[in-house]
Amino acid sequence: MTTTAEPRHDRPSRTPLTTTAEPRVDVAALTDQLLGQYADLRREARAVAGLPDFHKVEPMPMAEHRDRVLHQLRELAAHHDVLRAFPAHLGGADDHGGSLSRFEELVAADPSLQIKAGVQWGLFASAILHLGTQRHHEELLPAAMSVDVPGAFAMTETGHGSDVSSIGTTAEYDPETGEFVLHTPFRAAWKDYLGNAAQHGTAAVVFAQLITAAPGGPRVNHGVHAFYVPLRDPATGEFLPGIGGEDDGFKGGLNGIDNGRLHFDHVRVPRDRLLNRYGDVAADGTYSSPIASPGRRFFTMLGTLVQGRVSLDGAAANASKIALAIAVTYANQRRQFAGAGADEVVLLDYQRHQRRLLPLLAETYAATFAHEELLAMFDEVFSGRGDTPEGREDLETLAAALKPSSTWHALRTLQECREACGGAGFLAENRLVGLHQDLDVYVTFEGDNTVLYQLVGKRLLGDYAKALKAGGAGDVARFVADRAVHRTPLIRAAQTLADVGDARRSAGQLRDEATQRELLTDRVEVMVAELAAALRPASKLPADQAAALVNAHQHELVEAARAHAERVLWEAFTRGVHAATDPGTQQVLTWLRDLFGLTLVERHLAWYLVNGRLSAGRARTVSSYIDRLLVRLRPHAQDLVDAFGYGPEHLRAPIASGAEAQRQDEARAHYRAERVAGREAVPEKHVR
Amino acid sequence: MTTTAEPRHDRPSRTPLTTTAEPRVDVAALTDQLLGQYADLRREARAVAGLPDFHKVEPMPMAEHRDRVLHQLRELAAHHDVLRAFPAHLGGADDHGGSLSRFEELVAADPSLQIKAGVQWGLFASAILHLGTQRHHEELLPAAMSVDVPGAFAMTETGHGSDVSSIGTTAEYDPETGEFVLHTPFRAAWKDYLGNAAQHGTAAVVFAQLITAAPGGPRVNHGVHAFYVPLRDPATGEFLPGIGGEDDGFKGGLNGIDNGRLHFDHVRVPRDRLLNRYGDVAADGTYSSPIASPGRRFFTMLGTLVQGRVSLDGAAANASKIALAIAVTYANQRRQFAGAGADEVVLLDYQRHQRRLLPLLAETYAATFAHEELLAMFDEVFSGRGDTPEGREDLETLAAALKPSSTWHALRTLQECREACGGAGFLAENRLVGLHQDLDVYVTFEGDNTVLYQLVGKRLLGDYAKALKAGGAGDVARFVADRAVHRTPLIRAAQTLADVGDARRSAGQLRDEATQRELLTDRVEVMVAELAAALRPASKLPADQAAALVNAHQHELVEAARAHAERVLWEAFTRGVHAATDPGTQQVLTWLRDLFGLTLVERHLAWYLVNGRLSAGRARTVSSYIDRLLVRLRPHAQDLVDAFGYGPEHLRAPIASGAEAQRQDEARAHYRAERVAGREAVPEKHVR
Repeated sequence: MTTTAEPRHDRPSRTPLTTTAEPRVDVAALTDQLLGQYADLRREARAVAGLPDFHKVEPMPMAEHRDRVLHQLRELAAHHDVLRAFPAHLGGADDHGGSLSRFEELVAADPSLQIKAGVQWGLFASAILHLGTQRHHEELLPAAMSVDVPGAFAMTETGHGSDVSSIGTTAEYDPETGEFVLHTPFRAAWKDYLGNAAQHGTAAVVFAQLITAAPGGPRVNHGVHAFYVPLRDPATGEFLPGIGGEDDGFKGGLNGIDNGRLHFDHVRVPRDRLLNRYGDVAADGTYSSPIASPGRRFFTMLGTLVQGRVSLDGAAANASKIALAIAVTYANQRRQFAGAGADEVVLLDYQRHQRRLLPLLAETYAATFAHEELLAMFDEVFSGRGDTPEGREDLETLAAALKPSSTWHALRTLQECREACGGAGFLAENRLVGLHQDLDVYVTFEGDNTVLYQLVGKRLLGDYAKALKAGGAGDVARFVADRAVHRTPLIRAAQTLADVGDARRSAGQLRDEATQRELLTDRVEVMVAELAAALRPASKLPADQAAALVNAHQHELVEAARAHAERVLWEAFTRGVHAATDPGTQQVLTWLRDLFGLTLVERHLAWYLVNGRLSAGRARTVSSYIDRLLVRLRPHAQDLVDAFGYGPEHLRAPIASGAEAQRQDEARAHYRAERVAGREAVPEKHVR
Repeated sequence: MTTTAEPRHDRPSRTPLTTTAEPRVDVAALTDQLLGQYADLRREARAVAGLPDFHKVEPMPMAEHRDRVLHQLRELAAHHDVLRAFPAHLGGADDHGGSLSRFEELVAADPSLQIKAGVQWGLFASAILHLGTQRHHEELLPAAMSVDVPGAFAMTETGHGSDVSSIGTTAEYDPETGEFVLHTPFRAAWKDYLGNAAQHGTAAVVFAQLITAAPGGPRVNHGVHAFYVPLRDPATGEFLPGIGGEDDGFKGGLNGIDNGRLHFDHVRVPRDRLLNRYGDVAADGTYSSPIASPGRRFFTMLGTLVQGRVSLDGAAANASKIALAIAVTYANQRRQFAGAGADEVVLLDYQRHQRRLLPLLAETYAATFAHEELLAMFDEVFSGRGDTPEGREDLETLAAALKPSSTWHALRTLQECREACGGAGFLAENRLVGLHQDLDVYVTFEGDNTVLYQLVGKRLLGDYAKALKAGGAGDVARFVADRAVHRTPLIRAAQTLADVGDARRSAGQLRDEATQRELLTDRVEVMVAELAAALRPASKLPADQAAALVNAHQHELVEAARAHAERVLWEAFTRGVHAATDPGTQQVLTWLRDLFGLTLVERHLAWYLVNGRLSAGRARTVSSYIDRLLVRLRPHAQDLVDAFGYGPEHLRAPIASGAEAQRQDEARAHYRAERVAGREAVPEKHVR
């Protein structure tokens, strides 16, 4: 019996190319490009994520995992430069984008750590920073930053998640005592799903309907505001009087986080615990706010949540990278079924395997480039350099477009990679199942993906309406022309367009950047224009009929947003291609971007046909051009995942360690030795 | 502070219909129909699955879960009629189909239990039954049936999963001692992923290359055969001499099963431990077999594996039912965001939510009806009534088509349901995440789904070649005609067909059963014919070029198989619709079947357009007709999931218990009381 050798942690050798004239990826340069504007910070954060003390250990009992992650959090605070987003005078660096870039890398260590950090610093401490004022910063931020006070972000209730404005918790001001009375009026108003609530949190930022009366005035509900509320006695861990809660218990993933429920029975908090940047109550009960409109005030307060969406977008892209680095490395070594040659065929040489993995790789590149742009926009706004209402709105729309795309993409990628690795992919040691379990909730928390896409869709409709109103000739003309085209029966449209010699329909143009852009852009514009036309009667209908009309187009609204997100991703990828300086790298990235673009066109091919954007003959070439791109990209697949820059300390998957290739070498050596020694048994079919 | 009441376990009241003339589902009758030919056995098995002792408990440490499931297995054997597949004279009932129907229901208790039962009785004991002969049945089956001997099915190796014929383990006959020498020559030949191998198994059926020499003859490898091999000392749990192994450790799910690895160092087993139904070795080393062809012999032996695929198909459909029963019930109660009326909108009233859940419901019905037909075919073959080579081949092809479809469908359904339930869906208590984790490996074990679809694709090509060769006028004419159509440019084809007045292209015909059948059938036939034409040159090419040609069409091969599976599902659903006796039920099922059919057409709409099967105008109506079907089906959604017949003891999800509706009633009552008492605060926007 031979024994197993230690797995090799080196990478497999590069795939030999068939000719020397073929382009080659400059892996180191591409890694730099992908690490982006915060490359140094990301490298430092990856070094931390590579330390065994920060790794997820599977299986681990929930209680132990929770303790481990809390300990890791405090280690991060003490030693690892995770407080960059906070003010310089409190030990931070006022570096919002850089701070997020670091957190996104923590997903490689343990997504529970990434999300617990998000709860503590991105939500709890950030609410103090962004919704509070100077006295809150001075008094409350230091302990929140150091995790002396682990805190919950108590916004969501059992009864209201996406619709935050309808939460039931109330905070009524009592001018007699100068306190707010925080109260949970019914079970559906329990705060729920809150990290740090089940166990570790000794304080929370609690969102509640602020009710107060100016002297002699009526009791007025000023809408949702945030309050800093101590929860537990830090010494005993017991709830303070009037506060109760429940553990959310075991979850589908992220079990290093103690999610739980909270409820309040007439809990009194001092007036100055209202985080009063956007709304304040004077001692006599008079309410004041720098933002007159309650609606705009609410959305401004919620706007600080965008940070979470930005960092989930980056973390999801990173999880996709890790999954693909594992699955592609394995697929480049694992062999199954005899081929035409003497050896068995490497999985990645199977066309179907390429079809499963390479388009996901392309979209992961798109997500990475797009995220860098989102992060830059985020830093622009949060640094104050570009903090305008328009800047904030653009940031929120972009985050609402990208977070759903990248988180759903991560789940698809993790699942496909796990399946592509077969039974080995199902073992926890190979990471893919655990990452899927942890990332699962990314698609519904911090803004449910479907709800976010609807926000994007509404923004697109609003922009379209503005363009119509402004009468901007170009945009409107384009919308109108497009609608005219698609309303014509396909046959005539195709003929008409062929007659005017439209370049998009001539052969071989699908690889053309301008053609891809045109196809993706057209689709969004037409979808939005159609939707706007369909919804136009709503403004003249009674409320219930208007609601029914809008609802009858909800699916289209979501699909328009998805189309927009896809275009945004493609544009970012294209800018990434242009930014590559090495010619070989640029060529390979161009193929990869084409694969991404054509995969999108293939996915929506029916739309392009129905709307006369592609002829049947042209449409038929989309899939075959994708097949050709797969063949071109296949020799570069390993380089493209190596360029993500993850080491074995991040992948930590035995199937990506080289052990598979080593086992095959050993098996081959055995059969060779048998042959040489004449010990081979004759196959039965050769005997007969 | 109000306290939480106990969750109500009753079902929500039925959705009121808008008119009394609308059809209504007869839920009880539909439940009977869905339970099918083995309704009584399924009801009994569900009663067992509803017992708390058999339920999965989350979280539970792996070691404890493994012990629990082993104990459950023995309880099943002792008290719960799970041995029906075995011979009557050994206490079974020779009832193969009925036996599987019971096992499929165990997924409601704990998928680990279902799969551990599959390992013990479906693989280990079944191998003794189907590959062994009378002496094995008498000596070995009783202890395997009673689980006195927990056993592993040691086929897969670390280096070879799907390609079983290339396993490395050898069993060489030694005529000196009358023993086989079982040996693992290298690390890649370790048996791997085997249930019962890590801990509980005291024996295994081990698959190995059988090598023997007739007197004076050469050593011949007769290919893969199965051997009964004791593994551990039952008293101590220690491996027997020469045997070693490893625990596969924690997995993405199914952690109640002790999967592990085994290796053998010249382990000697008596000659009569070869399971010798399909191949035997005489004392002098002479090999004999009732099947002359080594290839056919191998596939005959592997044919017994079809049982596992059949039962996974049924279990996956059941998991989808449970998921939809939970998510639809919740979506029928949960409200979010204000609508036009006074109350918030029920999730299932949102078009997008209907779009997410109802097509999955339709496919689950299709999977259920198709599974009943598969089970009947399985029983036909395994009972011996229809055990012909053709019958076996048809059974294997049908199982290879349906198992991938239903297991992938289950994962999609579980994931969509989990997301549709938001944060609540991520809590383990609501079951969806745990079921997804457990079902995950169903798509790659017992035949990797992608590999199975390739088998189906090859069978389709073979059938097509036979039809061509036989010159059967009808079939070939159809293939040829179809190819002729699609190779004509779309414009002319559409015109031609319009000219001859093809019914498929006239308005309102998509709901027509014959039209749907034609669309789905055409597609398979054309895809197969195209593929056959593309692959035809392979027979005249050198091996490497032929392999490259075949590989360049692997994606199409898989997609052709998928199209075939979709058609099979649709046909089974249609037969199910016709079998419904209550008119209201039949009407609702017809809509649901139409939704399934049109969802398939929508998914492949580009194909229908490119191939001239649908005009652009007609294609445009597909989505809008789906939208109309959603509106029609929405009031029946609860009935359609209630008809699955699961009780709270099977769903065990607090969100499907009625608790959500109760919380809302309480909240409404609170606000009403506030209003009545004049305690309502004035919204700020009403003040200004």
